[in-house]
Amino acid sequence: MRRKRSKLIPDGGQGELALLERIRQRASGSASVGLRLGIGDDCAILRLKPNEELAVTTDFSIAGRHFRLDWHPPESVGHRTLARGLSDIAAMGARPLAAFLSLGLPKELAVAEGRRRAWVDGFLDGFLALAAQYKTPLAGGDLAESPLAVADIVLLGAVPRGKAILRSGARPGDLVCVTGALGGAAAGLDFIRKSSGGAVSPARHSKNAQSLLMPQLWPQPRIAQGLWLRRRQAASAAIDLSDGLSTDLDHLCAESGVSAEIDAKAVPVYAGATLEQALHGGEDYELLFTSRPNTTIPRSIAGVSVSRIGKIVNRRTGQPRIILTDGSGRHSLRRGGWEHFS
Amino acid sequence: MRRKRSKLIPDGGQGELALLERIRQRASGSASVGLRLGIGDDCAILRLKPNEELAVTTDFSIAGRHFRLDWHPPESVGHRTLARGLSDIAAMGARPLAAFLSLGLPKELAVAEGRRRAWVDGFLDGFLALAAQYKTPLAGGDLAESPLAVADIVLLGAVPRGKAILRSGARPGDLVCVTGALGGAAAGLDFIRKSSGGAVSPARHSKNAQSLLMPQLWPQPRIAQGLWLRRRQAASAAIDLSDGLSTDLDHLCAESGVSAEIDAKAVPVYAGATLEQALHGGEDYELLFTSRPNTTIPRSIAGVSVSRIGKIVNRRTGQPRIILTDGSGRHSLRRGGWEHFS
Repeated sequence: MRRKRSKLIPDGGQGELALLERIRQRASGSASVGLRLGIGDDCAILRLKPNEELAVTTDFSIAGRHFRLDWHPPESVGHRTLARGLSDIAAMGARPLAAFLSLGLPKELAVAEGRRRAWVDGFLDGFLALAAQYKTPLAGGDLAESPLAVADIVLLGAVPRGKAILRSGARPGDLVCVTGALGGAAAGLDFIRKSSGGAVSPARHSKNAQSLLMPQLWPQPRIAQGLWLRRRQAASAAIDLSDGLSTDLDHLCAESGVSAEIDAKAVPVYAGATLEQALHGGEDYELLFTSRPNTTIPRSIAGVSVSRIGKIVNRRTGQPRIILTDGSGRHSLRRGGWEHFS
Repeated sequence: MRRKRSKLIPDGGQGELALLERIRQRASGSASVGLRLGIGDDCAILRLKPNEELAVTTDFSIAGRHFRLDWHPPESVGHRTLARGLSDIAAMGARPLAAFLSLGLPKELAVAEGRRRAWVDGFLDGFLALAAQYKTPLAGGDLAESPLAVADIVLLGAVPRGKAILRSGARPGDLVCVTGALGGAAAGLDFIRKSSGGAVSPARHSKNAQSLLMPQLWPQPRIAQGLWLRRRQAASAAIDLSDGLSTDLDHLCAESGVSAEIDAKAVPVYAGATLEQALHGGEDYELLFTSRPNTTIPRSIAGVSVSRIGKIVNRRTGQPRIILTDGSGRHSLRRGGWEHFS
């Protein structure tokens, strides 16, 4: 993380220097075996264990696109920013090594006003709490003043050579499984949208509402589940559910060159969400994975339930890539929607 | 690089899918020994050589802050975005391994209009040309629609364990050196600002003007020079000149716990630039480095001149960290300015 020419606080840069120093101090608590040199030089330096390779992912979080300042508390924005990156690491079966955060903020979000803490401090609270939970040091990044709040998260992970779980490994006959329950993030967003005023303070809501808001505000990356699957070689392919089951399963099938059949009754729907939200809502950050038919998959992994929802079949050209079966028959499940299919 | 929920083109996402596929195809040409898996999965997978460690840097390029759409041609914005990251890799003496690009664009920059190519295609031209020059594959990233054009560049480099050139290695007695000439980027920006209308097409300018615009529009990261210095163990510390000599030398001295004395007459000033611009202008992306007094530093490294501009001295508390000497005496050189001193 460097103090760059384009300063977060243009008038002399003292505000940005102070923010940078605050981040540096708060980040310095998060040690990591692999991090040799953190914030303060041109680059951070990281080390892998022998025979490991590196998994890298970057994800934008842009105000008005991935979060709304009037809907998501700053702690949630920080949490979600990091969770997006960690979830990609989980989907590879990798262990998190370090995070880098590029943060562009309007001045009013970067500075405290009277006795009110700055928005960015709440953001860092949420970000660093999740980072501590997954022992992921904040090793660097960039700061800039920006008329639009934008965060880009970079996550580095380590995985034994050749052992990463790819999207491309699914084969006909494999089972299709998901962790946790789906649709909660979409249902929570819907709840927030309908709430009067829009600004959400979990304390203002009933226990049920708080439960409904959990997946949207505080999604949990499935790091432990990804590691479990990779160490036991239990998954033939995996992807994290950031775009929604219908879209992400389509990605997985495309990369693997296969098709899939899903049983609507078997899809685990988050309490308070609809099947539609479970099929097409994104941002649940659960893992979607396939496993060979002779692999035993437990009902839960590291405390999170696992559901078998369908199977991989041969790719049939000219046919829908994903077929959804329910009481009324067979449907073509497309990205973001589904329609009846003979 | 993934197609994410927040789509670059919201109406069905076909535009974004097409752009993503275009990037994927154009990026696929850039092979790398270390890149095992590029665009198309949750993460890219990279491999280091035995006994190497990883250098990581991220840098924002935000419209209106780091570039202006009416001042910088799209090819230059792409070039500069990547050059910022490569320059940090150069300053560590690392070899570039892979780049990741998170790109947020307004719709009008992402789509072609009539027979005019999309702005983003010019951006990619500039980005990928520089990537090819430094054999740096574009291995992933993120795409999003954004009301503000914003690019975050992530550069990964590899360096033999424990051999990276740090900011913190300068010791009293070391010589202070810079590559190339300074102030050109600031002088070029000044020229653009004063040009009527603002929009700059190099073809519209004289040969002198084109030369003046080079450092601002097409800065060259000093990868070869950084590698040379690291391999010969010729530098005790280094930093790239992104913020300007007065600021970056201050960073280097602070991290090393030393002070410096600079000879104004020895500072290499870019043709057409002023000493002020050479001292305080940023974005030159030359290397500032120190070397032990018994190290022989050639007059040029890999075709780029090297100038000895001063020396490192003991840190004297209560005294200016950097002293600039010229014909009129000794001055305190501060970040972004200087003043007479005793």
